[in-house]
This record gives sequence, structure tokens and C-alpha cells, in this order.
Amino acid sequence: MTYDKTLFNESTVNVLVSRLASTRAERESLYKHFHQHPELSMQEVETSARIAAELDARQIPYSRVGKTGIVAVIQNGIGPVVALRGDIDALPMKETSGKDYASQATQLDEATGAEVPTAHACGHDFHTVCLLGALDAFHTQRDQWSGTLVGVFQPGEETASGAKDMVAHDIASAMPVPDVYLGQHVLGTLPGGAVGTRVGPVLSSAFSVKVGLTGKGSHGSMPELGVDPVVVAASIIVRLQTIVAREVAASETAVVTVGAIHAGTKSNIIPDSAELLINTRAYSSATSSHLKEAIERIVRAECVAARCPVEPTFTYYDEYPLTNNDAQATERVRGAFDSYFGDASMDLAPVPASEDFSIIPDALGAPYSYWGVGGFANPETAPGNHNPAFAPDLQPTLDRGSEALIVAACAWLSSGEGAE
Amino acid sequence: MTYDKTLFNESTVNVLVSRLASTRAERESLYKHFHQHPELSMQEVETSARIAAELDARQIPYSRVGKTGIVAVIQNGIGPVVALRGDIDALPMKETSGKDYASQATQLDEATGAEVPTAHACGHDFHTVCLLGALDAFHTQRDQWSGTLVGVFQPGEETASGAKDMVAHDIASAMPVPDVYLGQHVLGTLPGGAVGTRVGPVLSSAFSVKVGLTGKGSHGSMPELGVDPVVVAASIIVRLQTIVAREVAASETAVVTVGAIHAGTKSNIIPDSAELLINTRAYSSATSSHLKEAIERIVRAECVAARCPVEPTFTYYDEYPLTNNDAQATERVRGAFDSYFGDASMDLAPVPASEDFSIIPDALGAPYSYWGVGGFANPETAPGNHNPAFAPDLQPTLDRGSEALIVAACAWLSSGEGAE
Amino acid sequence: MTYDKTLFNESTVNVLVSRLASTRAERESLYKHFHQHPELSMQEVETSARIAAELDARQIPYSRVGKTGIVAVIQNGIGPVVALRGDIDALPMKETSGKDYASQATQLDEATGAEVPTAHACGHDFHTVCLLGALDAFHTQRDQWSGTLVGVFQPGEETASGAKDMVAHDIASAMPVPDVYLGQHVLGTLPGGAVGTRVGPVLSSAFSVKVGLTGKGSHGSMPELGVDPVVVAASIIVRLQTIVAREVAASETAVVTVGAIHAGTKSNIIPDSAELLINTRAYSSATSSHLKEAIERIVRAECVAARCPVEPTFTYYDEYPLTNNDAQATERVRGAFDSYFGDASMDLAPVPASEDFSIIPDALGAPYSYWGVGGFANPETAPGNHNPAFAPDLQPTLDRGSEALIVAACAWLSSGEGAE
Amino acid sequence: MTYDKTLFNESTVNVLVSRLASTRAERESLYKHFHQHPELSMQEVETSARIAAELDARQIPYSRVGKTGIVAVIQNGIGPVVALRGDIDALPMKETSGKDYASQATQLDEATGAEVPTAHACGHDFHTVCLLGALDAFHTQRDQWSGTLVGVFQPGEETASGAKDMVAHDIASAMPVPDVYLGQHVLGTLPGGAVGTRVGPVLSSAFSVKVGLTGKGSHGSMPELGVDPVVVAASIIVRLQTIVAREVAASETAVVTVGAIHAGTKSNIIPDSAELLINTRAYSSATSSHLKEAIERIVRAECVAARCPVEPTFTYYDEYPLTNNDAQATERVRGAFDSYFGDASMDLAPVPASEDFSIIPDALGAPYSYWGVGGFANPETAPGNHNPAFAPDLQPTLDRGSEALIVAACAWLSSGEGAE
Repeated sequence: MTYDKTLFNESTVNVLVSRLASTRAERESLYKHFHQHPELSMQEVETSARIAAELDARQIPYSRVGKTGIVAVIQNGIGPVVALRGDIDALPMKETSGKDYASQATQLDEATGAEVPTAHACGHDFHTVCLLGALDAFHTQRDQWSGTLVGVFQPGEETASGAKDMVAHDIASAMPVPDVYLGQHVLGTLPGGAVGTRVGPVLSSAFSVKVGLTGKGSHGSMPELGVDPVVVAASIIVRLQTIVAREVAASETAVVTVGAIHAGTKSNIIPDSAELLINTRAYSSATSSHLKEAIERIVRAECVAARCPVEPTFTYYDEYPLTNNDAQATERVRGAFDSYFGDASMDLAPVPASEDFSIIPDALGAPYSYWGVGGFANPETAPGNHNPAFAPDLQPTLDRGSEALIVAACAWLSSGEGAE
Repeated sequence: MTYDKTLFNESTVNVLVSRLASTRAERESLYKHFHQHPELSMQEVETSARIAAELDARQIPYSRVGKTGIVAVIQNGIGPVVALRGDIDALPMKETSGKDYASQATQLDEATGAEVPTAHACGHDFHTVCLLGALDAFHTQRDQWSGTLVGVFQPGEETASGAKDMVAHDIASAMPVPDVYLGQHVLGTLPGGAVGTRVGPVLSSAFSVKVGLTGKGSHGSMPELGVDPVVVAASIIVRLQTIVAREVAASETAVVTVGAIHAGTKSNIIPDSAELLINTRAYSSATSSHLKEAIERIVRAECVAARCPVEPTFTYYDEYPLTNNDAQATERVRGAFDSYFGDASMDLAPVPASEDFSIIPDALGAPYSYWGVGGFANPETAPGNHNPAFAPDLQPTLDRGSEALIVAACAWLSSGEGAE
Repeated sequence: MTYDKTLFNESTVNVLVSRLASTRAERESLYKHFHQHPELSMQEVETSARIAAELDARQIPYSRVGKTGIVAVIQNGIGPVVALRGDIDALPMKETSGKDYASQATQLDEATGAEVPTAHACGHDFHTVCLLGALDAFHTQRDQWSGTLVGVFQPGEETASGAKDMVAHDIASAMPVPDVYLGQHVLGTLPGGAVGTRVGPVLSSAFSVKVGLTGKGSHGSMPELGVDPVVVAASIIVRLQTIVAREVAASETAVVTVGAIHAGTKSNIIPDSAELLINTRAYSSATSSHLKEAIERIVRAECVAARCPVEPTFTYYDEYPLTNNDAQATERVRGAFDSYFGDASMDLAPVPASEDFSIIPDALGAPYSYWGVGGFANPETAPGNHNPAFAPDLQPTLDRGSEALIVAACAWLSSGEGAE
Repeated sequence: MTYDKTLFNESTVNVLVSRLASTRAERESLYKHFHQHPELSMQEVETSARIAAELDARQIPYSRVGKTGIVAVIQNGIGPVVALRGDIDALPMKETSGKDYASQATQLDEATGAEVPTAHACGHDFHTVCLLGALDAFHTQRDQWSGTLVGVFQPGEETASGAKDMVAHDIASAMPVPDVYLGQHVLGTLPGGAVGTRVGPVLSSAFSVKVGLTGKGSHGSMPELGVDPVVVAASIIVRLQTIVAREVAASETAVVTVGAIHAGTKSNIIPDSAELLINTRAYSSATSSHLKEAIERIVRAECVAARCPVEPTFTYYDEYPLTNNDAQATERVRGAFDSYFGDASMDLAPVPASEDFSIIPDALGAPYSYWGVGGFANPETAPGNHNPAFAPDLQPTLDRGSEALIVAACAWLSSGEGAE
């Protein structure tokens, strides 16, 4: 595969990127603000307000989509429509990064009613500020390009709920259908400052399922009077291992993890029920569907084997689609990255994580591409995403994220396409 | 096996038992008092105080052993020493018997700091009052018999801690070594008013063990970086089934129950650890020892199979010895019961439960016998012990329990033995 | 329980038993003959011919039932009808007892067409000769008793086919309905020369089942294209352990053994199928039925869990009923044994083996009792039945077996019952 | 990645390939001869003799290496040394292809002493004749190229024994160290006539291991006296599933298959032992080593869990190394293929099979590349290798295989390299 490295007007890109120098101090300050004011998924009220204020200050038009989503649209003549997406939510964790701007925040979790520590342990604050930086550059340099740039500030990525929510609140009426939908994530696995692209499956599909098992309680000394749900649960867990080991081709990527099991309170009482929390990963829809079918099949059969008096229940949640980068769009991004970043543009291995990124472009009928940005000088020692110590190097990460958005968008917006 | 039915002086027994008629109203009232004022194991302060008051009122000498244990000793000339034991503690449950004297009580659980409902859902209030009634009869009719009668009011049976506590507080100095140590339990499995005896193992030995498993946490999508303690726990549970199925003779009685398993909090995080609560039952010490060895062997081996980075831990608790009725003593009790109760004296099948009853006689070097008293007119509908609805028929149970103690004790105290 | 030890006329028994002294040399010689000429189940042609010859020589009337079964009937006036049963078949084993009269024999196995070594490794040659000895004593001393004595020489015990065969060939027309049907087995677990009796279940019920599993073959590197029957079989075996461990009360006796598993030929080919041979034991019909239901339930469910394309098959064989000694008949035998054998009459623990003994009395509607005879001076070192080294001490075993039959039969035939 | 498509002198290749037209009839006839005279691994005596005769007829120098291996060496001036390998052995199967030249042959299997049907069900007859065709072309057209061409006719690929045997018999002294070692395999998964290449792992490493488990036999009704090896084996099989499911990254390719299990003969006898045949696949040495460690760890731990009295045994066989195509060599081959074959040169997906191809170049210290040749017009209906119906289309397969060898070799031999 070869990439055409002359997809954009080099001087345009240089002008747009040069804008970043003049906004650097402001962007770093804004980043630290967001980092210190992290908000839980679908509760990003202050974050959303601050984004709106930043857009207002620059006179960039936007509309709200749902409670905390924002869609900014810069119409700038004839040409392609490019959407850039940044997610904005944080996690319920206590930050342990040791940064002087580390989060001390807490927030009332509306789901549980508990006040919990919060932290941007997945780097969405970077995504937000990088997107604001790119919008600012395109908006201030409108004479350099032609077309429409859309900025999608998406809430609730961590709970797989934000993209769905924006679709439900009719994001389609808030923006034109884009020619391409672009997004990025700061990662510890790429060299610091590098950008990594990949055609095809780049993030796995995932779903979680809570399995409720009902046996029949009894005194621990009289198992024959009950149906032991602990043994049923254990048999299921053991049997689930055969899905990946026997039912999925070795060349396919699939994971079935039982992350939690809870049953019983006392050693000498056989409980009535048991609960499993299962998570899966797959890099194809067919495999994901197979995992779902196989889990239900095995759970049901083990309940029959044990003569459980009640059918097991399956409650699905955290369902993430496959992030399957469009080949043409991604090659176009890669060509631009190769041209601009040189050796810092590299291949991205499939990331064993999941995103709701693709839900909006799929709803809009747009091709998409999603890339990674290296956030740590030393990948060997970088904490993983969601680790409480996760806090990328401030720079060059903050600049690089905006640059990547500008360069990629220019592969359409300064390519001359539609601009004649 | 034949029983000599002329072990006691029939007229003596009749005189002693006739005393119960005159104390019936008082005993029923006292029973209802205890039933409505149940106290948790090793917290039986008011119960113990009331027992002491009852003994004081009758001028029966006694001493305190430990915080709530009481040992009454009626010395009455030359002759055998017979000890009668009644346990006095209640359970942390809300009574649902529907009796008009049902417990509404709560108590602060000193172990957890929580105020909990309490109920005599195992019938120890019967045991207490029946013992008081028997002591009263023997004490008021001292001219009818010769020897020494000891009444042991034992706390903390439900947590396997009371008998140990009385031994630790030197019960041996509070009473002479008995020729026999006798006890009883009200049950729903015998016909109402029946007394059931059995030579040899009558209650199982039991122990519980908390097993701590340490794996290595990881993101749910990257099991290869961790050691999944959920799979280790499940493999252990499945493998433990082979102990009873393959390692213990079919003619032996053994139970291994995993009553609780807890691991993890989220579907997509492989946790660091898992915890199992296991309970066992056996009717021989050899089998019980085998169960302990086998559980440890299997748990350790499964941890090795999974390359757990840390050794599993085993914390034993609720260890109950085998209640193994002395043949000679029990046949003597049975002979007396057959003679007095006729057809209401019957065989008792091994009870799938455990007791700390044998700890004191074993410590004192005395033979013992433990029998059952039927507490419900209809065994078919009787709730099991520890069921929140457990509340035996007031009568004839209350009389029958005192009669059984009197009749059994008389097999020694009015047998003429040592009295010449 | 007490036994009436005066069930028979002592002098009658002594006269009958005294006959054994005069036949001892002949019986020992006959025993060695049978021991050296063992024949497989349902192929006992020479054995049967020799039994017939021995009966002919004594003018004891008999008829053939089926190919090799023989029923001798000695009618001797008014009185009870007592049937004594001896089984006559041997096993396909090479004897390693080291006896100078050890078997060197082989026989063509009609089922397989193979010539196999044969040995009386279960002691049926004793049963045969002891029965002949008892018949001879009763026949020669007809003036000592009154009633009818029946001798049943039963083939094919080892394959659970002989008793069924005699019923199918109308044994009912070859003998009167007996008042009691008696049998015995030489054992290594009783002291040498002792006789052991037991009321109720004495030998377990048993059945075997061949389970055929059909998966879907594939190359070993492509399990996803197949359904791995090896994993299905293993999951079933592991899961079957829960039947005894969880579904049967600890106080019940049950065994589920997978004695054989066969699947596949090469490491890198996933085979199409697997086969299990399962054997069970139980001491009650309800438990045996439960085992059958549970095995089928678990096997079927595991096949569903694995999406086997074909239903599993179940082929039952070697089905033995429970041997459940009649209480009245057994107490009568026990009283006679206590009286005659004194301390050598003892309790027999349930034997973990099975017999087709009960099929004929059940078919005839007769109560039955089955006892054990100790065959080795030292039970500690005695080889078990079916061990190739099993060969009981010639004496006193041979005399004791005849004595036991005589004494037991006399509890009816010289009891005065029906003889007025 | 881009390939330099001008690695060879086009006219040279054309001259060499044109030679194939004149040998076509002879090659087809020779192919049918080999197809009808298949010989088992390491017993390829007649096959080897015929190859020698063909080389003799063309005056191509060669030497024998081991019993049936042949190394032909055509020295032709200064230049690179290129080795071409063809394997020559067949399989013990009855061919069901329906071809009019299908094999009817049988051969005495020296390992088992049995006369077995034989067939070239893996296409090695193609490899042999294609190599002969290429050698003939290079030998007859020596004026077209410069360097040294080596032809390696390797026996015993199917049993992983032939390459080892040639190394053991000092193949190093029979040929110069090659600059590249090239080989190919006819496949049903590529379009007919296509050639498929791949950098890096192309065929998995594999090993088989026979696991011997020793329990302790017992009667089926007395499992407590034994150690049930059937349950141990089943527990192992179930537990082995966790290796692929939990210990290997989802992105890695690994397979652990238990292809066979055998234990016991009768339902009611717990056998002494069980045997498993396990096969593994991996695309990296680290993963293969991990599989070996994990299998041994789990087997040993399960034996400890069950208290097996004897250590398990592990007998490794059929150990195939990873076929890991050298990047530079493979890109050179690919460039030549792209140039010559155009669209018929394509990517080869990793093949879920194993080869001993790499053993010789690894022993010689030479880089290697191994490619696939499509053998069936319709891959959808093509039988897999080792299927008894496997018999590729005679043409264009036979020509294409020789062409591929010629084209690839010319990437070195007519590249001008070393020819100054």
C-alpha cells in the first residue's frame, strides 16, 4: 500500500498550524482548567458551559445537542464537510498522577447518589482542548481553506451513552452530513508525539452482560434440597472458556471476561442466586454476535444441567460498536500525516479498547477514521488509560493533537476538492 | 441391642415429674419471657441474670463461668454426678412465627456495631427453661435421690464459642467431674413430644474456611497480562465437587458447600482477588480431616495451575466437633426413656447439624449423650431450626423437655448406684 | 432388635450338619474340579452337566431352566418351601492365587470370539458346592425335617443375565412358590468362617450406561469449524461429579463412575465422536432413578452447551436391582445363625457390590435374605472379589457355607411350622 | 510497503520458462507416475530412485543425503546460491479424488507392520515434479544465468522427520550455504494458478505431546480407594481451555487441541491410567514455549489436586518450527512475482498448518521464503490438504509451480548480483 503524500496544500497547513503558537499559553491554561474540573459521563454541565463560552468568545457558531453535547459548525464556502470529534467526560477515580495540576475534584454521581472523586484519567480533556485549538485555527484563518468544518463535543463516551444521546437528540439537524468524520485518542502505547493510523478494525466492539442465576437456597448441609447457584456459576465460568478456545478461530480476536461474580453471604447457607458480570471484545460484528449467542447458550444449558427452577436473565449494557476505519478516508489521513509528520506518522496496532465514536458517523452515513496520538515521552513507563496515574505530558501532546486534527482536516479542506 | 428398662426407681421419677404440674404456669411464663428477650451469642447478659435470679429464688447454688455462663451444682449425698446442659443464646433474625409471644426484640451486635433483630429461632429458650424446671424438681425433691446434679447453662452455641469459653474460664473448677454429661435439642423432625436417642455419631462435625485467592488484575480485554482469579475460583469450586464424589466412600457422610463467592466489581476489569466461604460436614474425625486436607490440596493446586503470584490463604472458623454419643451412657438413657415414655421413645436419625455440646464433657473427660425432643405436632409442616418461623408448640414440649432431663438423670441418680 | 434364638430344632440341625463330615473329601474334590474348570457367564455347559450328574448320583429330582440353569426340588411332606440359591459362573481372568489347584483354563468367549483365560475369581464355585452339600444333607436326612427344599443353580450372575434368563424360561413352573428364598456370598471382608447378616439394603442397585457423543470433526488447528467432542466429554465428566456432591443427600449412598472414555486417534485431528462408559450404585430405587435422570440431564445439557449437531445416545446395560433383605426373613435367619454359630454370627455392613439374586424371588413374589460368609483367615490381607488372586481358604469355608444353608433352611423346615 | 518489480532480467525468465513448454508432456506423465506410486514418510525409496534417474538422465549432479534425501547442485559460475526445496513423501490414506490417475497403492508401514493405502493427499508429488521442471530449465539454459542452483528433494515432511534427517546426515557438506532457501506448497485456499506470499510468520509452529496420567485403579463402586484418572483427565482437558482463553493475548494466534483421550475398558472399573494426545499451534516461538509450559503446569497441578501417586509423563513428537519468512528475501520474491504474474501474485494469509521446511535453512544459516500456489480452479469447493479427495488440477498447477520456482530463483540468479 502506498500513500499519496501530496493530499493537501502544504502552505495552508503551515499557516493554520502557526496559529497554535499564539494560542499555546491559553490552551495550556484551559487544559489545566478542564483537568482540574473533571465531570462524570452525561453530567458534564460545567465542561459544556466552558466549551460554549470558548466558542462564544471566538464567535464560532454552535448548537447544543442533548444536555451537554455541542456541535460547532464553521461554514466557509464551497467544499467538503469535515467533522472533528472530541469527547469531554471524565471518570470516577482519584487521580494519582502527582501532577501539580492533578484533580482534587469530586462530583455527586447521579446514578448512585454518592459523592465520588473524579479525574480525566482517559485524556478526554486533551481531546476537548485540541479540538478547540483546531477550530480556533480554522476559524481565524478562514481565507486559507474552503468548505465546512464541524466540531463535535461529545459527552458520555465512558458509558457508551453520549454518542447515542446526540443521535437521539437529532445531531443530524445540527450539522450537514460530513464527507468524513475524524477523531483521535491520546495513548500511552505510541511514542510521545507520534500519530498512529490504521485501516480497518482499530478498536474492538464490546458488550457487557449481567447474568442473573436463580438456584434454590438450602442449608449448607443439605444441598440435595436446593439447587446450588454457586456451582452453577462456577460451571458456567469454566465452560465459557471454551468459546474463545474452541469456537472462535485462532486468527480472530475475541475476549470473554467474567469480571465479577457475587453469590451468598455465609459459608453454611446455599444461596438462592448468583450474579455474573461478563465483558466481551471482538474485532468483527460476526464474532461479537457469536460471543453473545454462545454466552447465552452456555448459561442456559448449564442452568438446565443443574435443574435451576428459573430461567437465567441477561441484561446487556456498555455496548460499543466496532471502530472500523474506512480504508479510503484513513489512507487519505495517513498520506497527510506522512507528509506533515514524517517518521512520527506510523502504524497503529489494533487497540484492545472500545469507543462509541463510530455511532454518530454511522447514523449520519459518513465514513470515519480514528487515530492515536502518543502522550508520553516513554511508552515503556506510561500508565494505561483509566489508570489513576494516567496524565499525558502536557507538551508536545497538546500541540500535536491540534496539529493532527488540522493536518487531517486539510486533506479534505485544502485539497482543492470542490473548491474550483 | 436390648435396653434394660428398669434402670431407675419408677416411683422416684414419678415424684420428680409430678413437681412439674405445680411449676407449669410459672415455667410457661418464664419461657415466654426468654422468647421475647432473645440475646445474641456471648451477649446473653440479661438472660444469664434472669437464670441466676431464678436459681437464687430457689436457693440453688451456682457459680458464673465466663461472662454469661452459669453452673448450678446440687450436692445431695453419695452417688453419681450427672450434668445437664442447656444452651441459652439466640439468633440475629426477625421472628416470623406469628406467635402472640413472638420476639420483637433487637440488640446491638457487638461484632458489627449494628442493631439487629433477635429471635430464639433455634429453641434454646426451651432448653433453658426445661433445665430450670428439672433443677427445680430435683432440688425440691432431694429426699428422692442421692448424688450430685449439675446444671450447665451454656452461652454462645450458635458461634461455636460458648463451650470453649466455659472451658477456658475453668468450668472444671466449678463442678465435679460428671459420670455423664447430658443434653437435648428441640427438633421439628421428631413427632411432637417424642424423645429420640442414638448411639454414636448424632450430629456432624463441621468447619468453615474462608479461602483468599490472589490473582493479578488486568483490563478485561487483556487477560494475558493478569491471572484471572474468577476463573481460578470457578475451577476450584468445580474441582471441590470431586472430594465428595470421588474421595469419600459412598457410605460415609460428607458435605462440602461453597456458600459464598465474591470477586470483582466491573465486567471489564479482571480483579486482583477472589474470596470463597466454604462449609463442611462429616460424621467422623477422619473424614473431617480428609475434607480439610483435600480442600487445601485442591485450592493450592488450582492456584499453581493458574500461576497465581501469591499463595492462597485459609482462615478456619465455626469449627464444631463431632457429637458422638457414648454407647453405654446412651443405652442407659434409652432404657430409661423406653421405660418412661414407651412408644414416644424412638431412634433418632443422624441430624445434619453441628453442636459445641461435646466440648465440655470432652474437656472434663466425661461420657456424654445428646437426644432430640419433638417440638411440633406435625413434623411434616414444622419449619427447620434457624428458619425465622421456627417456634415449637409450647406444650407438651416444655414439659417433655424437663421430663426427659429428669428421667435421663434418674437413670443414674435414682438407680441405687453408689447409694448403698 | 432382638432375635429369637430358638427358631429351629437343634438336634435336627446337628444331624443334618453331621452329614457334612462324611461328604467332606468328596466336596473338596468337587470344589477343586469346579475351580479348575471355570466357565463364562451363560456358557456354563460343563458346570451345569456336572451339577446334574451330582444330583443324578443322589437321585435328587431336578429340571433344567434355560440353557444352563438347574432347579432341584426335594419334596418332603407338609411344611414350608425354602429355596436355596447358588450361582455357578466364572470370570474372564487369569488366576494369580498361587493355589496348587489354581485355574489354568481358557474358554472361547462367545460374545467376542476370543479364547480367554477363565477363573472363579468371585467364589461361585464355593456357592455351587456348598449348595450341593446342603441338598445332599437334607436329602439323605429326610426323616429329620418336613416341607420342600428347592436348590436353584443360577447361571450368568456376572453379567446380570442369568436370573433374568431363568425367569424368562419359566422357573415359576419348575418349583413351588417358596416361603423364603435364601442365598449367600463368600467375602473377604468378614472374618474367616463368620456369617454376616443384614436387614434391608445389603447390596446396591447398579446400572451401566454407554453414552455416545457426536461432535463434528475438524483439523486440530481449526476447532472453530467443528464441535470438539473431547471437550464435551470432559465437561460432562466434570459436571457429573455434582450429582453425588450436590444432588444426593450426604446420608444416601450413591456412586457415579465414568470407567472408560474413548475419543480420537491423533493429536491434530478433532474427532467426530466420543464414548463414555458410566456405572452407578445406589441403595434405594429412588436414588437410582435420580442418578439416571441426572446423568441424562447433564449429558444432554452439555451437548446443547457445545452445540453438538446430534443428540447423545444412552445404551443401558448391566442393570442390577437393589438387594433389599426382607426384615422378617432375615431376622429369622439371624436368630438361627446366632443360636448355631454364636459369636461367628455378626452384622454385615452394606456391600458395595450388586447382584441379580433378587430377580427370581421378586418374580416369584417371595421374601428373600442374602448373607455373607467369611472366606479368608485374615480379612486384612484378603484380596477383593474379582481380584485375580481371589481364592478363599478351602476350609472352613466350604463346610461353613453348607452349614449356613442348612441352619438357615432349618429355621423354616425344622421349626415345626406347618408340620402339625 | 512497495516492491521493486524489476529484480530480474525479464528476458532470462522468459527463456527459462519457455523451456517448460517442451517438457510439459513429460512432466505431466512423471507427475501421474508419482501420484500413483506414493510412499510413506522416510520410506520414499522408489520415489527417491526415480528422482535420481531423472537427474541422471539430464546429467544434473546430485548427492544422496540420508536414506532417501537428494541434493542436486548446478554450479554455473560466479553469483548467488539459491536453494529450491520440494518435499516428496505421501500419506497413509485411501485416495477418493475420483481422478483417473488416482492412487490405488498400498505400502507396508515400517512403524506398525501393517500394509496401508497410500496417497499424495498433500500434493508433494507436485512439489517434486515442479522442482524437477525448474532444475531442468535452469540446467538446459545455463547460458542465461550465473551462480549456483541447488535442488533439495526432502523426505519425511509429514512426520517432521525428513528435514531433521537431512541435517543429521550432513546436508551442509552436500551443498554450499545458500543466499536464500525457497519452497512452496500447493493449496486449495488460493485461486487456481495464483501465487501467494507473506512476510513473517506464514505457517504455525506446532508440537504434539502424549500425556500419560497415572491414577490408582479401583472397583467402580469404591472410588475412595483409588485415584480416578478419568476425572483427572477431564479436569485437565477443561482446564487447558484457559490457556488460549486467558493466558494468550487475543491478538496472538494459538490453538491447544486434545485430539484423543483414552482410558479404561469397563464401566465399573476405575482404570489405573489415562492418555491424552495434545496438539498445539502458534505463530511465535514465545507463544509456543508458553503453550508448552502451560500444558505441563496445568497437567502437573491437576495431578497434584487429585493426589495422583505417579508424576505425569510428557512425550513430545511432531514438533514443527515456526515458518517465519525472511522479510528481505520474501519482498524480493514478491517483487519478482508481481512483475511476472501480475494480479495472480497476491498476499497469502497465515496458513493454519505447519512444516519442517525451515529446519534446513535454519541449520545452514540461510534466510528463507515459502509461498503458496493455488491448485484448484474453485477454492470454494477445493478439499483441504490431507482430505482423501485432495488432488489439485493438473494444469495450470504443474506449470505454475515450476514457473514460480524459476521466477523466484531468477530474482537472485539473473539479477546481475555477483555477476560482474
